[in-house]
Amino acid sequence: MNVSALLTSAAINIGVCVLLLSLYSVLRKQPSNLSVYFGRRLHQALPRRHDPPRFERFIPTPSWILKAWETPEEEILAIGGLDAIVFLRIIIFSLRVFSVATFVCVFLVLPVNYYGQEMHHKQIPSESLEVFTIENVKEGSRWLWAHCLALYIITCSACLLLYVEYKNISTMRLEYIKASSPNLSQFTVLVRSIPWSEQKSYSDSVFAFFSKYHGNSYLGHQMVYWCGTIRKLVTDAQKICSGVSSEDFSNKCKHLLNCGFCGGSAKTFRVLSKESESVKDNVFYRDLDATIKEKEVPAAFVFFRTRFAACVAAETLQSSNPMLWVTDFAPEPHDIYWSNLCIPYRQIWIRKIVTLLTTAVLMFLFLIPVTFVQGLTHLEQLQQAFPFLKNILEKKFINQVVTGYLPSVILLLFLLAVPPIMMAFSSVEGSVSRSGRKKSACCKVLYFVIWNVFFVNVLSGSVISQISVFSSPKSIPTQLAKAVPTQASFFMTYIFTSGWAGLSIELIQPLPLIYNLITRHILRRKDEACNWSYSFPYHTEVPRVLLFGHLGFTFSILAPLMLPFLLCYFLFALLVYRNQILNVYITKYEGGGQIWPAVHNCTIFSLVLTQIIGLGVFGLKLSTVGAGFMIPLIILTLLFNEYCRKRFSPIFKNTAAQVLIDLDQEDERCGRLQEIHQQLPSAYCQLTVSSHEFRPAGYNTPTSRDSSQRNSSSTPGTSLGTVDPFVDSESQPHKLEREPYAKFSNLVNK
Amino acid sequence: MNVSALLTSAAINIGVCVLLLSLYSVLRKQPSNLSVYFGRRLHQALPRRHDPPRFERFIPTPSWILKAWETPEEEILAIGGLDAIVFLRIIIFSLRVFSVATFVCVFLVLPVNYYGQEMHHKQIPSESLEVFTIENVKEGSRWLWAHCLALYIITCSACLLLYVEYKNISTMRLEYIKASSPNLSQFTVLVRSIPWSEQKSYSDSVFAFFSKYHGNSYLGHQMVYWCGTIRKLVTDAQKICSGVSSEDFSNKCKHLLNCGFCGGSAKTFRVLSKESESVKDNVFYRDLDATIKEKEVPAAFVFFRTRFAACVAAETLQSSNPMLWVTDFAPEPHDIYWSNLCIPYRQIWIRKIVTLLTTAVLMFLFLIPVTFVQGLTHLEQLQQAFPFLKNILEKKFINQVVTGYLPSVILLLFLLAVPPIMMAFSSVEGSVSRSGRKKSACCKVLYFVIWNVFFVNVLSGSVISQISVFSSPKSIPTQLAKAVPTQASFFMTYIFTSGWAGLSIELIQPLPLIYNLITRHILRRKDEACNWSYSFPYHTEVPRVLLFGHLGFTFSILAPLMLPFLLCYFLFALLVYRNQILNVYITKYEGGGQIWPAVHNCTIFSLVLTQIIGLGVFGLKLSTVGAGFMIPLIILTLLFNEYCRKRFSPIFKNTAAQVLIDLDQEDERCGRLQEIHQQLPSAYCQLTVSSHEFRPAGYNTPTSRDSSQRNSSSTPGTSLGTVDPFVDSESQPHKLEREPYAKFSNLVNK
Repeated sequence: MNVSALLTSAAINIGVCVLLLSLYSVLRKQPSNLSVYFGRRLHQALPRRHDPPRFERFIPTPSWILKAWETPEEEILAIGGLDAIVFLRIIIFSLRVFSVATFVCVFLVLPVNYYGQEMHHKQIPSESLEVFTIENVKEGSRWLWAHCLALYIITCSACLLLYVEYKNISTMRLEYIKASSPNLSQFTVLVRSIPWSEQKSYSDSVFAFFSKYHGNSYLGHQMVYWCGTIRKLVTDAQKICSGVSSEDFSNKCKHLLNCGFCGGSAKTFRVLSKESESVKDNVFYRDLDATIKEKEVPAAFVFFRTRFAACVAAETLQSSNPMLWVTDFAPEPHDIYWSNLCIPYRQIWIRKIVTLLTTAVLMFLFLIPVTFVQGLTHLEQLQQAFPFLKNILEKKFINQVVTGYLPSVILLLFLLAVPPIMMAFSSVEGSVSRSGRKKSACCKVLYFVIWNVFFVNVLSGSVISQISVFSSPKSIPTQLAKAVPTQASFFMTYIFTSGWAGLSIELIQPLPLIYNLITRHILRRKDEACNWSYSFPYHTEVPRVLLFGHLGFTFSILAPLMLPFLLCYFLFALLVYRNQILNVYITKYEGGGQIWPAVHNCTIFSLVLTQIIGLGVFGLKLSTVGAGFMIPLIILTLLFNEYCRKRFSPIFKNTAAQVLIDLDQEDERCGRLQEIHQQLPSAYCQLTVSSHEFRPAGYNTPTSRDSSQRNSSSTPGTSLGTVDPFVDSESQPHKLEREPYAKFSNLVNK
Repeated sequence: MNVSALLTSAAINIGVCVLLLSLYSVLRKQPSNLSVYFGRRLHQALPRRHDPPRFERFIPTPSWILKAWETPEEEILAIGGLDAIVFLRIIIFSLRVFSVATFVCVFLVLPVNYYGQEMHHKQIPSESLEVFTIENVKEGSRWLWAHCLALYIITCSACLLLYVEYKNISTMRLEYIKASSPNLSQFTVLVRSIPWSEQKSYSDSVFAFFSKYHGNSYLGHQMVYWCGTIRKLVTDAQKICSGVSSEDFSNKCKHLLNCGFCGGSAKTFRVLSKESESVKDNVFYRDLDATIKEKEVPAAFVFFRTRFAACVAAETLQSSNPMLWVTDFAPEPHDIYWSNLCIPYRQIWIRKIVTLLTTAVLMFLFLIPVTFVQGLTHLEQLQQAFPFLKNILEKKFINQVVTGYLPSVILLLFLLAVPPIMMAFSSVEGSVSRSGRKKSACCKVLYFVIWNVFFVNVLSGSVISQISVFSSPKSIPTQLAKAVPTQASFFMTYIFTSGWAGLSIELIQPLPLIYNLITRHILRRKDEACNWSYSFPYHTEVPRVLLFGHLGFTFSILAPLMLPFLLCYFLFALLVYRNQILNVYITKYEGGGQIWPAVHNCTIFSLVLTQIIGLGVFGLKLSTVGAGFMIPLIILTLLFNEYCRKRFSPIFKNTAAQVLIDLDQEDERCGRLQEIHQQLPSAYCQLTVSSHEFRPAGYNTPTSRDSSQRNSSSTPGTSLGTVDPFVDSESQPHKLEREPYAKFSNLVNK
């Protein structure tokens, strides 16, 4: 590949991007596409903007770019939450560090590479790309110090910026914890692996344990039930709903809910009205009571008086058998992944190991479609293997399709299947929160992408030869140093196609657009299309952005020509993702910036790999001084990482006592604590998924129960807010409210 | 080597052992050696046993064996503490698992090895040892299932026994925690990295922080001072002691101690008597006050009302900067390694990394003396290198000495130097407790021994060839499978010499014996010899026992002939170490069985290595079925380890809330809590090292200060018990009390 070919390729891709952007600019102005491009606004029922007149709608305008650029960070934080900010910080970090890298490499390394060998230089457009890579520097050249210096500058600026970002993000996280107050999850602890007892139900065990050992701070608790049971109960309720009168039903439901879903026991009956006492004899009820007890899962949410008490209960070892009474911070009510709460705690560790192994196996098995696809380009072999295909494959058009498009389409399809598979693995793993599941999936996709896009392409060859490379660790730097520079042109085109074009496609949202078109114009169901809204796919986008960062670091001194294109990618990405967060995606739950430590580790990995490749390169170029200078750089980078781990990562695992106690004391001064205690019992209802963002379910319907009742013999009960038991998976539409069901929840709220 | 040579070697070593045991039996009866063989009894001032008449003293008797055998475990627990029990459990575990292994391997594997090839067998005594190893089994033999089965049986029994031991030891640990109550360290938290403030002293900062955030449970605190300062102060006090009158001095000292060493500030003055108020104007005092404030270290012991409150403060993250206000469980007062408390917390992580790297470097550098020693056996090369040695080396006697004894003596000397070096590394590492330091040194010595005794001997050859083995991980099983069986005869003689003879030498205690002889008969200082007492050297003995266990596992199916000798070693070791714990070593501090998780991990490592070698052996012998069966075994062993890690290891890191709260509640019921609170302020005094075992310094002199004073503006002070600032290092005699110094401490106690 020569420079003009590269520029042509870039120009084509820029053309495609401009075309797609114009298309987007037009499409977003059509009122029928509102649900595709303004999902968040629709979901939040924000005032509709003034529709432009018919003519203007078909003229592309760059107004969205200005809007995305100008929106202040505070607004994005308010809209997308801390996770969105952290995601954008990844891009901003990359922009900054690659600005430095581009400056250093273009003005220092590129000339050294270009004039690295005494040779006759052609005109630049017809010059081969290899002339600009480190391969052009002759062995033992004294100019290799430039590469070494560049690597030092890049590493130092990356570490400095990483430190600044880590510090900023941990400050933001602390502010988020303070600002999100009163966050009911801060008062709540998730207890799992409650020991089984013949005499007592799980609920009674929880009450006995916590009132004995945390008596001063324990407020109440709420059991978790088998998800199937919940579903059945609601169906039963619906059935009865159509049979009994409204008044009668209301009582029964109250009864049902008070005894079952509230961590309550028989003791809770006392608070009920006299009319409902008569229901006790009802055969239906008695069966239900027995069933419910049986269907308790050994897991519960336990509520405490203060944040600090909850934190203490979550962080200390409760029982002398560490597999019993396992406590942890409760996720926010919206964030809970209910079905995983039913998994016995004893299985979790083995599930984690199994999913880890399966992920590793999948990463290597993915080489099979890759080699199959590589095989497609050799049609003769295919014809020999399947003689009956001979006639078909001899046609020129089919031949072109098979060799030209099919391989990349197949690869793309396989790659598209990876994030959902990883998400499924993370579900199986047993994460109790949706954000935890997404974070885990994000890490898995990241490993997958770095291995299958970077390493497999760099070391391209058969499966066996790759494994043999890694079976001799000493030769890895040399092998990488030989292989990486040769792939520079491939990865440059990868940035054009997967990077630039990928962003345009992200903007256009082809799948929702087509779905919208079909439902609206073919199936003619307007309501359904309106409810299309989903949360930001961090598990696909974070790995993508990090992969480009990884490419940037590893190729920085080897093929500096890549950096300007990469810089364009990050600039474009910043605009696109800001726009998407502002308009398209809704925020169903908040991860609290938990993803940053993984991002930090990935960047450090990229840096160290770059340095190892540098070591190999200096070894190949017979520059012992350069290779010698790499070793302290590697050690210092690793030490920096260790320091950051010590300094910042505990903040992302636990919350400091200081912060929590300050918040508690402030709430107590304001008298807000009492109010929070009243809201607590209704916060974690297994039946509830609120349709509001960021607000625990019970917010709109605080129960009248006073927390002082705890000292009486009754365990606290729960009243139910808006009820929606069917919304469990992420891909499901959110505002699903069925007719009989809405009736049911209205009745309950009476 | 053939069987008769092996038996001869065994017989010689048995003879030496019997001789040494008889010698021991005689020596221990001599009253002059009392300090060598009954150090613990002497130290505890237990009633002297009846000295036998002169004639009987010179007849060897096996009475000590009976005593060591019969002593019940409870008595050993009372004498040696939990650590001693855990150490003996390692030996008992080894005895049990190798009884099973010996049975299986001698009756199943040994015959298969012996008849593994169709060959003419000589008479057994003249048979080569190789005939009994797996090398004699022909390739592709169908009898290899016997080895596979044996490995399964050994692994299963080892895992079962490991589980039982882990469970027992964690139960014992819990019982120890309950039984050691009231243990003042359970009420205490060590705070490090107190932030520096211009306005406040560290002591004031601690008071402000803990009374704000842990106001309900905070009792008081005590600062740590630069060790040099303490030393200087005591010297100053001694100087003054000779100058001023007794009455006046007493007041001054009280003043000095109240203001300085007690975490006190100027506020503490109020409690002082009127006479001492006048001292305030004294120039000496004012200087001292300023100096003491400056010499505060940003570390303190903070006392809490209940155990649970202390546990909460130790386990939760205190500040939003995890490098500030770092809290941890306080070690027991005897166990504190004071000088390491002065190390700034920020250095700890880097110190840990540096010592880890230095240990690794030392492990590899040790190969240099090994290769040098190997070179000594080739005298010609030595003569060529150093021509001037030619004349000396040509003499036959010198030649014999150099080739025969010198190599092993040099190696032994180098090996003897390793534990002290590792101990020094562990001190530099920054461990705040002596038991922690010893545990860390123990792990380092363990790695060292396993690498330098096992791996280096197995892969014996030059340094470079060893490293190249490990640079291709895939070939490791095969390489090990080839190398290990060939070294069977070497390791058998190693068991005779280093194992059996080593135990006899441990019993005889040559160094203390010689020291005793010299001081008593040559220097004629009887008092000094009496005070020879030191604690059990876990950091040398645990790795030694584990190394023999490692040899047992790895050679079990390869050379089963080794197992009976190993079984004898463990039986002998059990007797010897029980005797030593009962009579010789004193227990200065208690580690609480913290060493067991390391022992467990080491055993799992040995098992997995055995299985990997098995994999290699089955590969070499072309038994794919056997190799196939090894892989699930490895996976299952690792899963078992992971389960144990989840199930038991948290108990060794933290104490369960349940246990602590139960203890707190019981103490409160008995009204003992008040008494404990009174003892707390004097428990952790930097000046104090009590001469009693297991008892915090302040036990005998409880201060009269009421804890209710905490609410007044004064921070709690401390009165001092027996004072001994010079005892800091472990090897130092313990009961050192100097003349002027004893006077000083008496005055203080007045």
